[in-house]
Amino acid sequence: MYNLSEILGKAKAAKPVLAKLGTDAKNEALLLVADELKKSHDEIIKANKVDLLNAEANGMSPALIDRLKLTEERIEGIAEGVRQVAALPDPIGEVLSMWKRPNGLTIGEKRVPMGVIAIIYESRPNVTVDSFALTFKAGNAVILRGGSDCINSNIALVSVIKRALSEKGITEDAVSLVEDTDRKYAEELMKANGFVDLLIPRGGAGLISSVVMNATVPVIETGTGNCHIYVDKSADINMAVRIIRNAKLQRLGVCNACESLVIHRDIADLAIPLIASDLASDEVEIRGDEASCEISNIVTPASEEDYGTEYLAKIISAKVVDDIDEAIAHINKYSTGHSESIITNDYESAQKFLDEIDSACVYVNASTRFTDGFMFGFGAEIGISTQKLHARGPMGLKALTSTKYIIYGNGQIRD
Amino acid sequence: MYNLSEILGKAKAAKPVLAKLGTDAKNEALLLVADELKKSHDEIIKANKVDLLNAEANGMSPALIDRLKLTEERIEGIAEGVRQVAALPDPIGEVLSMWKRPNGLTIGEKRVPMGVIAIIYESRPNVTVDSFALTFKAGNAVILRGGSDCINSNIALVSVIKRALSEKGITEDAVSLVEDTDRKYAEELMKANGFVDLLIPRGGAGLISSVVMNATVPVIETGTGNCHIYVDKSADINMAVRIIRNAKLQRLGVCNACESLVIHRDIADLAIPLIASDLASDEVEIRGDEASCEISNIVTPASEEDYGTEYLAKIISAKVVDDIDEAIAHINKYSTGHSESIITNDYESAQKFLDEIDSACVYVNASTRFTDGFMFGFGAEIGISTQKLHARGPMGLKALTSTKYIIYGNGQIRD
Repeated sequence: MYNLSEILGKAKAAKPVLAKLGTDAKNEALLLVADELKKSHDEIIKANKVDLLNAEANGMSPALIDRLKLTEERIEGIAEGVRQVAALPDPIGEVLSMWKRPNGLTIGEKRVPMGVIAIIYESRPNVTVDSFALTFKAGNAVILRGGSDCINSNIALVSVIKRALSEKGITEDAVSLVEDTDRKYAEELMKANGFVDLLIPRGGAGLISSVVMNATVPVIETGTGNCHIYVDKSADINMAVRIIRNAKLQRLGVCNACESLVIHRDIADLAIPLIASDLASDEVEIRGDEASCEISNIVTPASEEDYGTEYLAKIISAKVVDDIDEAIAHINKYSTGHSESIITNDYESAQKFLDEIDSACVYVNASTRFTDGFMFGFGAEIGISTQKLHARGPMGLKALTSTKYIIYGNGQIRD
Repeated sequence: MYNLSEILGKAKAAKPVLAKLGTDAKNEALLLVADELKKSHDEIIKANKVDLLNAEANGMSPALIDRLKLTEERIEGIAEGVRQVAALPDPIGEVLSMWKRPNGLTIGEKRVPMGVIAIIYESRPNVTVDSFALTFKAGNAVILRGGSDCINSNIALVSVIKRALSEKGITEDAVSLVEDTDRKYAEELMKANGFVDLLIPRGGAGLISSVVMNATVPVIETGTGNCHIYVDKSADINMAVRIIRNAKLQRLGVCNACESLVIHRDIADLAIPLIASDLASDEVEIRGDEASCEISNIVTPASEEDYGTEYLAKIISAKVVDDIDEAIAHINKYSTGHSESIITNDYESAQKFLDEIDSACVYVNASTRFTDGFMFGFGAEIGISTQKLHARGPMGLKALTSTKYIIYGNGQIRD
């Protein structure tokens, strides 16, 4: 029987050691990890080949097999990602604020590591390295539980990371891989209260919902995005067409892609034919309400279910509304709280949309595809939170930290 | 059958309305709630009488009955608490930071309400009003699930609050009480994903652990405190005696009371007899390791279990250590991550303790009793978080908020 408790215990024991690591020590270790990854590409590609052969034997789709595949170039890309994390400012130790109370106590709020972070993810081996780099830079120990499809690649990658850490005299327990991908160990990880300070699921809707419903440790829900673009009556229609094309088509399988359109009735006759023919020219299927079907025969009837669907494919829903209030109500009803955008030239509409849409990222006149830690300037991203607790929207290094109060006294007692 | 879904639906529907309420509207409603509470004391006390009679019939202890009891004076105290919340700055709408990206996008992080907050608590009716005032001020709808012991008091209090809200033209769904205290509705609340944005348990260790283990909605774990005071070898012994007395005895049944002592061996011969006799003079039982038993015959032998116990009573554990590293290791092993204090005059020891103790609040030369939203200057407190996600330590109004990104573009698309 596989012993997850040992991993949990070791990760917990590593916490104080990792919290004390200086910025230079962390950055030097990350740079060595990057070098070692590059140097070890033969070893990594060999392990990856086993995963690829298994995937083919299991009938995995070519698109998924491609996501799984590691090449020398891709490994160099992963290593470069680690170098970029090394170059980011260290979030740990920052004192966010400090104040003095009338009784003389001086209270400071200091940024500290979260502790032990567990990541449950699917079949992309780059997530393994990426998750280690970010959690390590923020002073945490990480426990990785990737999918069974890339287990051999993951074992090779984590062994390279451990080797580099060890060479720098840093505890190898900074990173652990759950090598037995039996579901029961993932579930044990979800319930490891007292050991896991934060659990982040990275993957599809099924994985995320299973983690949210089963975990008893603190979780950040990431990901699913039924993102809307609302074309207001004062919209620049050409801008709307351009932004919708970008948000739907620039990359299909991502959580910040646009899945749903909402169009003001006063502009629908002009806007829908242009938007529809532009999207149709790239084989996007448009499923709309009665009004939009009447305006354009490219549009096919939508079901109620369509409005709530994250397609991640060349399909988009469309709905015509009488005013911005109906648009906002529709969006707040069907969205997953990820990213929504209004195309408008009306000041009041823009402000109202920003105020009243209840999503992590709310845009005026821009593509929803910008919801991303790199695009936001965070220099990194561990995921996009769609919950309101702790972090909302793209999560960079700071989302992987906590704070503590440090209080300087000189004998104060409470009356 | 009781219909919790209806309450959940109404609270969710109230979110956008409450999020839009201006500061003046919220404050005026809170002041009216305070006035109405004061005016309605007869009605409230009458309902409370029913709870008191039931409690007596059920053989509740006099101490608990006293906690349950409402008097005109206590109701005025509760109303005064509401007025204080009205006087606090409104956290909603603050833009924490705003920056411009090279592509011209301007990104701001804005503080918004959490949404629907559920509170599960025990038998103190003041928590009902207090929880409403804080969550309402931060723009949230609140669902209250108090204990069965104070259900009649709670129904009366919530009805007074609803009356005042209604008089001000504010939706009564800002506050809901789960009137059927059957455990199954509390459990339904814990699993109301998509409706409850945050669940806060307020009460004893049993309640909190049951919520943490059963909830699938985001939770903030509050409360239990096995707080330590470490007497370093350079401590001012008189200061240590004074602070330990305050932290143990100023109030017994609170989470920030000191439950465990750790004493440096070099000062143990001097410190333990003084501390022990001071505590013993107030009937505090001291349970210590072999070394402390040898030093003072007041000290009785501690079991392993004692080091991990939150007594909330006139008992304290004691342990002698060889150095500060052993002290820190002992504390990090047994503490609940709430509040710990070092008594020292050594600069390095003070810094080391602040750095290495993994607790929400870490003190130098002060009583742990200061871990409190009011003592910290937050003007309010909804609880003390002992988890690392979202909020850690005393939680004021800001802990009841989330943020969202607002992004101003002028046609940006992603390359």
